Amino acid sequence: MTRYFSSDFTVGILGGGQLGKMLLYDTRKFDIRTIVLDPSPEAPCRIACDHFFQGDLMDFNTVLEFGRKADVVTFEIEGVNVEALEQLEKEGKKVYPSSATLKKIQDKSVQKSFFESHGIPTAPFKKYQSKKALLDAIEKGEIQLPFVWKSATGGYDGRGVAVVRSKETVNELSEGTCIAEELIPFKNELAVIVARNPSGDYKTYPVVEMEFHPEANQVEYVICPARVEASVAEKARKIAEKVSEAYQHVGLLAVEMFQTKDDEILVNEVAPRPHNSGHYSIEAAYTNQFEQHLRAILDLPLGNTESKAGGVMVNLVGAEGYTGNVIYEQISEIMEMKGVTPHIYGKKVTRPFRKMGHVTIINEDLGEARKIAEKVKNLIKVTGSEKINP
Amino acid sequence: MTRYFSSDFTVGILGGGQLGKMLLYDTRKFDIRTIVLDPSPEAPCRIACDHFFQGDLMDFNTVLEFGRKADVVTFEIEGVNVEALEQLEKEGKKVYPSSATLKKIQDKSVQKSFFESHGIPTAPFKKYQSKKALLDAIEKGEIQLPFVWKSATGGYDGRGVAVVRSKETVNELSEGTCIAEELIPFKNELAVIVARNPSGDYKTYPVVEMEFHPEANQVEYVICPARVEASVAEKARKIAEKVSEAYQHVGLLAVEMFQTKDDEILVNEVAPRPHNSGHYSIEAAYTNQFEQHLRAILDLPLGNTESKAGGVMVNLVGAEGYTGNVIYEQISEIMEMKGVTPHIYGKKVTRPFRKMGHVTIINEDLGEARKIAEKVKNLIKVTGSEKINP
Repeated sequence: MTRYFSSDFTVGILGGGQLGKMLLYDTRKFDIRTIVLDPSPEAPCRIACDHFFQGDLMDFNTVLEFGRKADVVTFEIEGVNVEALEQLEKEGKKVYPSSATLKKIQDKSVQKSFFESHGIPTAPFKKYQSKKALLDAIEKGEIQLPFVWKSATGGYDGRGVAVVRSKETVNELSEGTCIAEELIPFKNELAVIVARNPSGDYKTYPVVEMEFHPEANQVEYVICPARVEASVAEKARKIAEKVSEAYQHVGLLAVEMFQTKDDEILVNEVAPRPHNSGHYSIEAAYTNQFEQHLRAILDLPLGNTESKAGGVMVNLVGAEGYTGNVIYEQISEIMEMKGVTPHIYGKKVTRPFRKMGHVTIINEDLGEARKIAEKVKNLIKVTGSEKINP
Repeated sequence: MTRYFSSDFTVGILGGGQLGKMLLYDTRKFDIRTIVLDPSPEAPCRIACDHFFQGDLMDFNTVLEFGRKADVVTFEIEGVNVEALEQLEKEGKKVYPSSATLKKIQDKSVQKSFFESHGIPTAPFKKYQSKKALLDAIEKGEIQLPFVWKSATGGYDGRGVAVVRSKETVNELSEGTCIAEELIPFKNELAVIVARNPSGDYKTYPVVEMEFHPEANQVEYVICPARVEASVAEKARKIAEKVSEAYQHVGLLAVEMFQTKDDEILVNEVAPRPHNSGHYSIEAAYTNQFEQHLRAILDLPLGNTESKAGGVMVNLVGAEGYTGNVIYEQISEIMEMKGVTPHIYGKKVTRPFRKMGHVTIINEDLGEARKIAEKVKNLIKVTGSEKINP
């Protein structure tokens, strides 16, 4: 049995953003040695890991050399050099989630095809190699307006996704391989996080409900448990488990889904890592998603995924019209409210819609938590030292 | 309004042990800049603070120079140079808890006199300047055997406290000022943590129950809420609030108490910092004690002290007969049990009875949590790479 606690055993984390930072709370709790690689010297993970390395996550040699210093390699962002992960695996290194899992997820067109070939319900889509090919398809009537455009790679936090309502909009999109997905009218966006360890054990978190900001395409509230009928929740959970089984991933898999007007569940996309939709679990769950990810990749027993109380999570994004040194206005006022815990990611500079933190609201009564969440959202404002034109 | 979050505002923490380490989870969560001073280069706080300084906590100049680098100074251990804190206060630095509070607590004979002069119920005691004076008092029949001996200074984790049942035992005690306290037969040891901020707001955590290891004089289980009658809990809470008001402290004050056979409450001792009896709060409380300490010393609104679920905490102490590199035997097995979270303090070397970590067991049903806690305690063993004679 490998000794992970207070030993030389080292977890290597690719990516040093807020997900890595929150993962480090739990490596510290277990006193597990960590190294982190990130291109930014100001990365939120800079402190709390044992050694921080600055370097390009997409560079083969940088990732390879970094990975060789660790006993198990994981990532907190999908944008990493997957060939380097493959090489590490060939050298006998444990990489969780594996390069094979990541390859089936990194490219959204591959991800969608994977859903189709595994009988996982998802919105109909077509793949295009360029903007020109996309425009041609619209001309030919191959795709109907409006549709959802998704860049095959590089999408994150609302970037790389757009609803196309007119041909002209296409010009504003970025170049490259993309998919055009049927725009499905839906009642709710739901998400389920599934944890799986190398022994094949898995555990599923409760179904959560996501409310998106209409403009920024970023999650505004995450509500756990989702306020949907038990039968819908059960269906969502079952589908998430099916997705998890199809990927045979190790670590967390966050499955985002739509509940259609007919209460069908369609899988939107997946992420093989701790996820924004699971942040509520830090305060609400018996085992938070970050500890669970560690348990999973270290082949430790998975923890209880149930909630101790109802939870609502509010993302703190940079307000429009500001940049420069971040200022959290009215943060003291929100901390006065019952069950409110702010999480500040440690990014020094704000930008419009940049994810700067989140706030969790915990309450025995979920309805009460939701009410407080709205007050929180209306009160706190993430501004900066410089005003810019919105 | 001072900006604490993602700013240059700096919290200086004297002491880099496990209490500081757990406090750093919350400074990271709020992205508050921290510096830590500790004599050991292997201190658990070495990472996760912004800057770690190695130095003597009892040295006037070391503490003064360190404190000057911070905007607010706090401590996680009472054994710090209090004159340096006074000097820092004279220079206009915020020190929370204040040097005045610490001076009334650091010396146990002063602490006991403070209880008496403020009408706080406590066991009768007498103060002696030396072992010889203590022996003379026994000879003269001024103290009755058995009694509780407490060193005036330096007591921690069961050191500096002994039950004296025969005159001969006195020779084994350490030299110096001490108190001899009447041995009170009690039903329960209880504790209450009170948080107070500079504005004078205060909040009280639920009453917890402590079970001590009979030999090591260290807490074995902490149970929250205490399984005592509501009237007893209410009395304990009220007395803790009275103690808190008497000290006018800023930050946390842990009040340890005895429930006598007649359901009287006597204050045993106090600690002006996060406390072992509050570790359960990390998983169980809406606001854990470390976040609360930060809220208090930064004059932020105090958080909700209620529990989300029943909690039991088991201390992990080094097993007798072992030293060397620590090994956590059967840790994987305890992690399989429901609601179990181990906390590993990050001390690389174990010693008999050394506090190496703790385990929290959370359950809706407190009785169930207590049962699991006993299984945890019987299963996990903190051994080391070297065997020594017990």
